[in-house]
Amino acid sequence: MNIVDIITKKKNKESLTDEEIKYVVNGFVSGEIKDYQMSALLMAIVLNDMNDDEVISLTKYMINSGSKIDLSNLTNVVDKHSTGGVGDKTTLIIAPIVSSCGCKVAKMSGRGLGFTGGTIDKLESIPGFEVNLSKEKFIEEIKTIGMAITSQTESVAIADKKIYALRDVTGTTESIPLIASSIMSKKVASGSPNLVLDIKIGDGALMKNLDDGRRLANLMIKIGKQNNMNIICLLTNMNIPLGNNIGNSLEVLEAIEVLYYNKESNLYNLCIELSSNMVSLGLNITYDEAKEKVLDSLKSKKAYSKLLEFIKYQNGDITKLPKSKNTYEVKSSKEGYLSNLYSLELAKLSMNLGAGRQNKEDKLDYSAGIIINKNINDKVEIGDTILTLYSNKDFPSIEEDKLFTVSTTPIDSYDLIYEVIK
Amino acid sequence: MNIVDIITKKKNKESLTDEEIKYVVNGFVSGEIKDYQMSALLMAIVLNDMNDDEVISLTKYMINSGSKIDLSNLTNVVDKHSTGGVGDKTTLIIAPIVSSCGCKVAKMSGRGLGFTGGTIDKLESIPGFEVNLSKEKFIEEIKTIGMAITSQTESVAIADKKIYALRDVTGTTESIPLIASSIMSKKVASGSPNLVLDIKIGDGALMKNLDDGRRLANLMIKIGKQNNMNIICLLTNMNIPLGNNIGNSLEVLEAIEVLYYNKESNLYNLCIELSSNMVSLGLNITYDEAKEKVLDSLKSKKAYSKLLEFIKYQNGDITKLPKSKNTYEVKSSKEGYLSNLYSLELAKLSMNLGAGRQNKEDKLDYSAGIIINKNINDKVEIGDTILTLYSNKDFPSIEEDKLFTVSTTPIDSYDLIYEVIK
Repeated sequence: MNIVDIITKKKNKESLTDEEIKYVVNGFVSGEIKDYQMSALLMAIVLNDMNDDEVISLTKYMINSGSKIDLSNLTNVVDKHSTGGVGDKTTLIIAPIVSSCGCKVAKMSGRGLGFTGGTIDKLESIPGFEVNLSKEKFIEEIKTIGMAITSQTESVAIADKKIYALRDVTGTTESIPLIASSIMSKKVASGSPNLVLDIKIGDGALMKNLDDGRRLANLMIKIGKQNNMNIICLLTNMNIPLGNNIGNSLEVLEAIEVLYYNKESNLYNLCIELSSNMVSLGLNITYDEAKEKVLDSLKSKKAYSKLLEFIKYQNGDITKLPKSKNTYEVKSSKEGYLSNLYSLELAKLSMNLGAGRQNKEDKLDYSAGIIINKNINDKVEIGDTILTLYSNKDFPSIEEDKLFTVSTTPIDSYDLIYEVIK
Repeated sequence: MNIVDIITKKKNKESLTDEEIKYVVNGFVSGEIKDYQMSALLMAIVLNDMNDDEVISLTKYMINSGSKIDLSNLTNVVDKHSTGGVGDKTTLIIAPIVSSCGCKVAKMSGRGLGFTGGTIDKLESIPGFEVNLSKEKFIEEIKTIGMAITSQTESVAIADKKIYALRDVTGTTESIPLIASSIMSKKVASGSPNLVLDIKIGDGALMKNLDDGRRLANLMIKIGKQNNMNIICLLTNMNIPLGNNIGNSLEVLEAIEVLYYNKESNLYNLCIELSSNMVSLGLNITYDEAKEKVLDSLKSKKAYSKLLEFIKYQNGDITKLPKSKNTYEVKSSKEGYLSNLYSLELAKLSMNLGAGRQNKEDKLDYSAGIIINKNINDKVEIGDTILTLYSNKDFPSIEEDKLFTVSTTPIDSYDLIYEVIK
């Protein structure tokens, strides 16, 4: 077998065989296939696509490239994954809810690259918090308190790490087969038999429209079935940011507030939906039964207590969250109703304030970020503060119209959850 | 400017600006843009194409990446290029014809990679022959005997060398914009104001059909005009091998025979057409006037003498061409007419015998190759020798049907030259 022949096949829109995909994954991990050959193949996949069988093969050999976490001694295990959104701190809210309902949440999370931090970055903003748990400590914590979050170990889905790093610097991130195999290889290797996927749809997300989201959902469900996993996919709105806070420690703060105050918001509602589906899978009960448990856990503050217990267990000191030196208020020059908040631009601004990484080596400013002071359809007067920016750097010049829109009339209500696919 | 943004633009089928292409070429030569990024961009170009303006920009910055040969002190200079065919030894025949007609042939040639050797490999099969001329020696030889052939200097079109090496190992060779810019960057930098291009069409060639050939021709003529070059393109048949010999020293031998015996063949006829167009450009006379000179040069053996003079001038000893230890005759198992010779399969066989390189480091066996003992539509009896193989290795097993076809009836005549585009 020859990598140039394989690249040429995909360039000519032909399907690759299971054997060829095995050769590619193993050859790339071993170094026999070079970065420049893999990136040419990745671009050919992005542009000429893969069929389901190819994606299933690709995922299989990516799983086999690393070790697997064995959670078979635990019961009621359930995992969650989001394709990534602006202000998405759902893991910090959902994991305590779900574990306080009696499920075990064994979560491996990543760092962020791009505009926002990942869950691990957010947790690291808590002074003292340990994100690198040994396999034993990880399982011990799940047994003791019902949940644990650790950074991905180097040994899981090694091929995915190498491929993802290359995709990131070669413009080959946007591909449903590559996204599906990347997520599913990690999730299968992580050992949970149940998984709820939050597939974000919108301008600020990887999936720009519902059709793409549906294809990704169905593909991941199919891969899940091949690997004895139960999967539920929610297709959710990512045109506006999730919640009001963007930035690592600001998002930890918002997670605590949501669990404490139970204040209605798009973030709160989404967390209830995701949690209910997780509890339904994890305890093998109906959605309605699960939702009742979730709401009870929220109202009784069991979830809130679980989050604090979890942070303490991993040695975090929540009383010492870092604060920025500088704040800056972005005020409205118009009167009317807040009709849009531009996720992608807000995320870029947040990155520029220090909350995201432009390069892998960049150090994060955990305290930096944005608080959105108004919600969609709130009445706005001239001079009202719409955004508060936090940074230890100087503030960039702000173009109000790129970040939000104030219109003369309120907008129609929008869908938070488009579809649930099982 | 950012290479990932540029790759993403091309992935999304957008055109790149002149500034962006400059950034890509210069960044790749300087090493700032990595191989894996360039190969992703090359694949995006292969699949999403480039418009003429992009190709003109690409060629311009590839030319500017290296030094240029100044031939402005010479008159009647004409160059020739072939997109590469099986058994294509036309340069060895044409250059002596054209220079014996009063033109100056200043030719930089390459080595072969893939199934057959390049002109430089063929010349190197002549013991003593010097292929690396200094710029001074090169020009001195042209002034003295009217022609010179040297290998491409490292300093000409540096970007092309780097890009070509990458395309070769990443399945990104088949792209009209990349082929046009590669050829034209070298040709413009080589300094000849006149150029005849032989664009091969067929299974054994880079261009598989006439439409692609026409697009490549028009694109190269357009690039030529931008650089004050007169170009004539011939679109020619490459479904069957050119002439009867394939392999380095075997092709030198055939070139000598063609010039000595003037025997009619597809190779002989193509050389007359290419030479006539070159002489027409180089001396600024009509095609008919040029053709008369070409035929006279052949019949009077002036071209034959010129070839010997040229080989001697570059220190080659034609009496010492290497010979293979082993020969093997491929005989027909059928009776009828020779109706097809499969260029690509013959080329692969020739490579396996030692005449071509699979990897850049491979050493050629100059004596290895194939002599085709019959011509298309020759009567064939069972047991007639169709091919004679030459090698110093053991002979591979031969599948007759893959190499040639013997049919019960002769085939219709075929076109040698499809079109001439000026």
